Amino acid sequence: MERKSFADMECPVAHALEHVGDPWGLLIVRDALHGISRFDDFHRSLGISTSSLTRRLNELVAAGVLERRPYQERPQRHEYVLTPAGQDLKPVVAALAAWGVAHDPPGTTPVVLVDDTTGALVDPVVIDRNTGRDVADPSIVFRPGPDATEFDRDHRGPAPAPA
Amino acid sequence: MERKSFADMECPVAHALEHVGDPWGLLIVRDALHGISRFDDFHRSLGISTSSLTRRLNELVAAGVLERRPYQERPQRHEYVLTPAGQDLKPVVAALAAWGVAHDPPGTTPVVLVDDTTGALVDPVVIDRNTGRDVADPSIVFRPGPDATEFDRDHRGPAPAPA
Repeated sequence: MERKSFADMECPVAHALEHVGDPWGLLIVRDALHGISRFDDFHRSLGISTSSLTRRLNELVAAGVLERRPYQERPQRHEYVLTPAGQDLKPVVAALAAWGVAHDPPGTTPVVLVDDTTGALVDPVVIDRNTGRDVADPSIVFRPGPDATEFDRDHRGPAPAPA
Repeated sequence: MERKSFADMECPVAHALEHVGDPWGLLIVRDALHGISRFDDFHRSLGISTSSLTRRLNELVAAGVLERRPYQERPQRHEYVLTPAGQDLKPVVAALAAWGVAHDPPGTTPVVLVDDTTGALVDPVVIDRNTGRDVADPSIVFRPGPDATEFDRDHRGPAPAPA
């Protein structure tokens, strides 16, 4: 076999990647979160071919992440707008951006995440909603769950110490 | 042009995806966060071909996300362990898992994220470290930054309202 289907994997990470797993998919979502909605603007932003962009936009529409909607008649034109599920990827993109800033920062800052109520920059961190603890803390770990297979129970637990 | 290079994109999301952008890359990181470190176990978990898995593991090592280290002599065997930068992807994977649970939940729960100090399940949420505000709040938005180009200033701002 070349690969399992993501949808067949009983894991929310795999299910999420089925929607946006292509790296271009997440960059299109990023651009949509930046307010870009028109085909030509995605194309200018990303520099991928129009055929690739069309295919990926259609995949994100089929996945329920973007909605295609008309913004002009004669000639009819469409834009691509995040659905509520797509909008909910903002925290994922923010967490990914924070990782990029920490581990492979670009030299410039074309876009920032700001709190519009104050204008201050936002510093995204992932915490446990119930306790406020930082998910990065080593005591917060993945463990076999109620539906773990024997393989899961034997192999999934806290990761070995970092190198 | 088919695509821009991610590394040339002055955006931390693009830089982050350069390291783990392949959807399989993030699933390998997920498995490593689950404590999986050996080739055969990644192979059993993911069901991709050994050649694909070898290539992706090598890419993650080159990207500084995994370290390959010996765990046995005669015959020499290696395991793949998260570097500190790789370990720092735990919040990203947690945020992605939370999105999957909310928008495309799998039917079963083979793995859970738990707080080992209490044994309680963790509910990951992305907040602003400075204010504690939920990044999902509509008032937290991407805006053009100090190095924005004319295109960025014209096109990047709060996204249109969700469909």
